[in-house]
Amino acid sequence: MEHEEYRENPVDDLKERVLELAKRRGFLWPSYEIYGGVAGLWDYGPLGTLLKQKVENAWREIFVVGEGALPIDTPTISVEEVFLASGHLSNFVDLIVECVDCHHTLRADHVVNEYLRGRGMAADLCEPDIAEVCVPSREKTQELIDFYGIACPDCGGPLGKVHDFNLMFATHIGPGTQRKGYLRPETAQGIFSDFPKLLRFFRDRLPFGVAQIGKSFRNEISPRQGVIRLREFTQAEIEVFVNPDKKSIHPRFDEVADVEIAILSKDFVGRATVKAACDRGIIAHQYLAYYVARSQEFFLRVGVHESQLRFRQHLPDEMAHYAVDCWDAEGLTQHGWIELAGIADRTDYDLKQHERQSGLQMTVFVPYAKPKAVERTVVRPKMNFLGPKYKNKAKQVADYLATISDPSGPFIFEGQEIDPLGYVIETTTQSVLGDFITPHVIEPSFGIDRTVYTILEHAYDEDTIDGERRIVLRLPHSLAPVEVAVFPLVKALNEKAVEVFQLLRREGFLVEYDESGTIGRRYRRQDEIGTPCAVTVDHETLENGTVTVRDRDTTKQVRRSIASLAVTLREMLMGGFAMSPS
Amino acid sequence: MEHEEYRENPVDDLKERVLELAKRRGFLWPSYEIYGGVAGLWDYGPLGTLLKQKVENAWREIFVVGEGALPIDTPTISVEEVFLASGHLSNFVDLIVECVDCHHTLRADHVVNEYLRGRGMAADLCEPDIAEVCVPSREKTQELIDFYGIACPDCGGPLGKVHDFNLMFATHIGPGTQRKGYLRPETAQGIFSDFPKLLRFFRDRLPFGVAQIGKSFRNEISPRQGVIRLREFTQAEIEVFVNPDKKSIHPRFDEVADVEIAILSKDFVGRATVKAACDRGIIAHQYLAYYVARSQEFFLRVGVHESQLRFRQHLPDEMAHYAVDCWDAEGLTQHGWIELAGIADRTDYDLKQHERQSGLQMTVFVPYAKPKAVERTVVRPKMNFLGPKYKNKAKQVADYLATISDPSGPFIFEGQEIDPLGYVIETTTQSVLGDFITPHVIEPSFGIDRTVYTILEHAYDEDTIDGERRIVLRLPHSLAPVEVAVFPLVKALNEKAVEVFQLLRREGFLVEYDESGTIGRRYRRQDEIGTPCAVTVDHETLENGTVTVRDRDTTKQVRRSIASLAVTLREMLMGGFAMSPS
Repeated sequence: MEHEEYRENPVDDLKERVLELAKRRGFLWPSYEIYGGVAGLWDYGPLGTLLKQKVENAWREIFVVGEGALPIDTPTISVEEVFLASGHLSNFVDLIVECVDCHHTLRADHVVNEYLRGRGMAADLCEPDIAEVCVPSREKTQELIDFYGIACPDCGGPLGKVHDFNLMFATHIGPGTQRKGYLRPETAQGIFSDFPKLLRFFRDRLPFGVAQIGKSFRNEISPRQGVIRLREFTQAEIEVFVNPDKKSIHPRFDEVADVEIAILSKDFVGRATVKAACDRGIIAHQYLAYYVARSQEFFLRVGVHESQLRFRQHLPDEMAHYAVDCWDAEGLTQHGWIELAGIADRTDYDLKQHERQSGLQMTVFVPYAKPKAVERTVVRPKMNFLGPKYKNKAKQVADYLATISDPSGPFIFEGQEIDPLGYVIETTTQSVLGDFITPHVIEPSFGIDRTVYTILEHAYDEDTIDGERRIVLRLPHSLAPVEVAVFPLVKALNEKAVEVFQLLRREGFLVEYDESGTIGRRYRRQDEIGTPCAVTVDHETLENGTVTVRDRDTTKQVRRSIASLAVTLREMLMGGFAMSPS
Repeated sequence: MEHEEYRENPVDDLKERVLELAKRRGFLWPSYEIYGGVAGLWDYGPLGTLLKQKVENAWREIFVVGEGALPIDTPTISVEEVFLASGHLSNFVDLIVECVDCHHTLRADHVVNEYLRGRGMAADLCEPDIAEVCVPSREKTQELIDFYGIACPDCGGPLGKVHDFNLMFATHIGPGTQRKGYLRPETAQGIFSDFPKLLRFFRDRLPFGVAQIGKSFRNEISPRQGVIRLREFTQAEIEVFVNPDKKSIHPRFDEVADVEIAILSKDFVGRATVKAACDRGIIAHQYLAYYVARSQEFFLRVGVHESQLRFRQHLPDEMAHYAVDCWDAEGLTQHGWIELAGIADRTDYDLKQHERQSGLQMTVFVPYAKPKAVERTVVRPKMNFLGPKYKNKAKQVADYLATISDPSGPFIFEGQEIDPLGYVIETTTQSVLGDFITPHVIEPSFGIDRTVYTILEHAYDEDTIDGERRIVLRLPHSLAPVEVAVFPLVKALNEKAVEVFQLLRREGFLVEYDESGTIGRRYRRQDEIGTPCAVTVDHETLENGTVTVRDRDTTKQVRRSIASLAVTLREMLMGGFAMSPS
């Protein structure tokens, strides 16, 4: 296949070609270009927005409809307490260093890594990715700058001290500066903050999944990699709350057991089924493995090439300190392998942190199959002794005694041992119905913008039709932003073609009507944006009510009646259409 | 009908009942409740999010698919230049006043209006609404406070001076404070900023429409009205760029001409068709009238009651100074008539402003039907005279002469009259192909959150079924967050019911499975959240493969085979299902 061949010989400037197409045809535009633009902010043009919506819809079909993870929608402006709890206020930082001479502010770890790479050494500092709370050590970065005497890469001047720069956009809520607000760095914290309400919504039963698609923000120092590193981006995250004792078994694991994935981990590199990866201990448990498989299903459905998709296990030193195991779904692009999603076991870290910060319990009562008889030793106050002895303080003494869980005395009240005549130590058998546990959280977290970019790159193709080079965007049919194009063959047929166009629009298709230029040029315009079906109204249309329908990929045409057109097109868009000439 | 009767006797605390239901069942939750909450920030819980998505989808069906307004998606973080151009930096302000004693910050105009109302006088200061650039005069507010000696309503202390408070959330882009950023107060500015690219996308032809759904922000002083006044909200806006000479005729006006709307304007109060409203000059022109009609179509489709929907024309003094005519779609709720959408003619104001700020042309070349012959008088330099006379300055002189548009001399160069022998004044006939014009903008702008709230209030109903009071949410079927509920009649049927549940989930329905409590209680739970169809697996299911399907509104049941269940349910959700017992 030409397509495969093309992939095997990637053109050096494919990155530029894709971006040129994306900008020219209205998929992606640098934001605020009329005011000089801002690095790290990009617009989705009309076609990009339609494509992105379809990617999000595919995600919802799999994770919301299919998995039953219910969506919530929380504000992007968040209060300080959330990030005190989550650790973002102290840990979500990049290291910056300012040049003493030219006053440029630089990413300190990047300066170091580039310096080392430039001298043939390995980059020594880890490079954190989207919304991860992970950062190279400030001390180590400073040490390396000092040791090698690294200078400003822009002007050669000396560098100042390495500082932390918090990557959250800060603002104030209401007038004055009394209430700080931050733009959320991940949608996840909105879900954790709502845990008590979500638990009630799910009627106090585990497991349950909660999803959120929305904007997140990261105030990058000086983002360079075009659409790959954004200051404002769309995340699609799911937090699955599970009983930590039940992570090893996912109830629907059978459905995905045989899904084969490409694995890159410390201990294994190659293809394996998720079942094998689980059984061999490569993936920590079935819950993670299950969502790794569902993530692959999502990426393949939206057009990421299987041969350019892999799951990479985090090394212990790049994982957030609380995580047990974390896998990145990575897509191979002209920017190298880039993270498209992370599937992590966040354990009970977040809930415990919010519990501490809010003072509210973040636990679930899990009943035992049968009540358990538990022996408990308790300290029972004797009021007829305590009353006369402690008078108005007797109740305080009794309350204190009642809270004691370790019955080995002596018990001290206001510096004095309590008279043992004031209580009895009893052992009783109690029937306990269950435990309060803090759920663990499995988090599949997707970067929608990078996914859209990867789809564009993987779909981009060039071939030769009738001796003429064409660009064609081989998007999955169901994902194409424009679903159908309608052309009149000649001007005299414009009116009839507009009729067909309006008919299809009423049927709910995203249709484009084009009457300008040669028919060949009109086909090319649609091929470039991935439109799967092009309908041409020709002279025969007026005679017998038929039109031609052309397939983007094969460029083959069939003739269909206008009456059956909607059905034909729907089949083509669903991918179940055989282009046999009828 | 019980329903109508209910509306005629609205219960005083309906507002509280709706909010209680919305909170209890996971439609709307105050944000960050575990940290004490923040006024003006609300979460959509799982059911609220699903409902909101369906509202947005209905909007897209009408305006994107139906009207061909193409969506774009621009960042919420915007650069300062945008709001210098739009006027938001100077005009998007509220008036605040601080109490000298208790230091509370108050909305100055609210303090005045409440004071006046409290004394039986009419509120004297206009009250701007969502994202409008309109504010009562600071001077007048100060005058009224001084004249009446208005004191702090919280503590009775004296009030300080009235100040402007800008309602945009401010932040900084990148490290340091050199680049200011603001959270956008409306999605519209992202569209205006992209005008040059959008114009190219639409191949330099008018009219075209561009849509954006996304978050906007307004840093309210102290928002009180619950979910009605939010600091972060979702807008759905369309900017239609039209030739100002063609506003009076909308090409598809016939499709909506007979749509009847409730009108409240200075000159007319009552129901009329949009055609009549246009013909009688009540609505300024067909473009506005067309979008008024489409807006009504949207609101009715999502379940706003027609009898509680009206279109109110802005009075001249509440309209932004540049607007020609503006209509608010208002819904009647327990908060009174609230603005759900605004349909405004923004003229060429925004494009002109961005043209000024950016120095780039924001015009469209509109060709004439035929080229026009235009007589032009030009000043033509004669180089054979100018060369010898002005030497190395001759070119400067010639360039200057060539720019002259008014040929009545004398022409002065460096303080000296240019010798008339150095040029000829000629009258030539030129063929002019068209004009550069600045498009006008018609903007239908929707508040999605208020729409969702209004839908909930209008759908909320209570009736009596079998002598028992029930709450039922009479949402349009296509809008219900949970589409189908599946119940086993008794525990022994759980397994079979789970099978049916999974079948329907695979078919793409949003399904909920419930096995706990009596069957009556389970029906109530679904009625409360508006689930249109409830499927019950009973003993007959095992015998002949049929289940019962219950309709939310009538509570009537029919029996259907599992094999035809998906078809039956799809018909019910589309609203085309007759509940005749088959």
